[in-house]
Amino acid sequence: METTTVQSDRELFIKIVISNWELQNKRLNGLLDKLSDEQVAAEVSPNRNSGVYLLGHLIAVSDGMIPLLGLGEKLYPELENIFIKNADKSGLEKPALEELRQYWNHVNNRLTSYFSEMQPEDWFTAHTAISAEDFAREPHRNKLNILLNRTNHEAYHLGQLIFLK
Amino acid sequence: METTTVQSDRELFIKIVISNWELQNKRLNGLLDKLSDEQVAAEVSPNRNSGVYLLGHLIAVSDGMIPLLGLGEKLYPELENIFIKNADKSGLEKPALEELRQYWNHVNNRLTSYFSEMQPEDWFTAHTAISAEDFAREPHRNKLNILLNRTNHEAYHLGQLIFLK
Repeated sequence: METTTVQSDRELFIKIVISNWELQNKRLNGLLDKLSDEQVAAEVSPNRNSGVYLLGHLIAVSDGMIPLLGLGEKLYPELENIFIKNADKSGLEKPALEELRQYWNHVNNRLTSYFSEMQPEDWFTAHTAISAEDFAREPHRNKLNILLNRTNHEAYHLGQLIFLK
Repeated sequence: METTTVQSDRELFIKIVISNWELQNKRLNGLLDKLSDEQVAAEVSPNRNSGVYLLGHLIAVSDGMIPLLGLGEKLYPELENIFIKNADKSGLEKPALEELRQYWNHVNNRLTSYFSEMQPEDWFTAHTAISAEDFAREPHRNKLNILLNRTNHEAYHLGQLIFLK
């Protein structure tokens, strides 16, 4: 009986975090559907990042969750250098916007598929970038925390991308 | 033993959500400390909301959590009309920025104080704006979900306020 409670509690936590991640994705997808390629190519505000850069950045960060959560290999490892390690005006060649739109959907579909295969207890284990000592001291820094943190990160940039409208 | 596990699971999850909320507050406070009153009074991007409006909006939304989580009465109920129901250019008189800076700290300190008094199980109960039927069907829409959702909302506007720099 108590084991059932532990399990159902965990499933509830996971549902809270995943549903908030899905909500941000839904909002961003709704925005992307409304914007023309020209609009996404523009800067979100004068002398700030372009929509293309921010979309690439969000793809690279979400893709990075795959190895960070121990789920597998990144789909687009080449994006890290272009969209995380370097700034918008780096001069590095970016994938075409049409490709980025596809990558964004592909990464999210892949994550959704991985999440559906995870067991509730998996979410409460350490992510792959924290040491055993740190995790023993700070057990809240688990995989679920990563998804929650990345959801906030997506919301942050969504607040900027909305200015493309 | 299993009861301990239920309790510690819940405490862990509450810690994840509160620590992410605190992280957003820390980032916003760090930004506000760096910005002059003139900078906060400016629009975050041409023809978009001013920093003053967004700060007032975030105060009103955070203040709204007090009754929504069943913790008490709002500290500044008058802000809802100015900063939630109406837009920046409504012509309604806004409190002075110096006052808003104080309100923001006051609301966050009050919430922190309330949170410290809540029992872990309180977070898993219905917030005050969901019907018993809806909550029975969707038990993940609890008080913790509200704080997580409002944290994403803060991150969204923080992504805009950062342009005031």
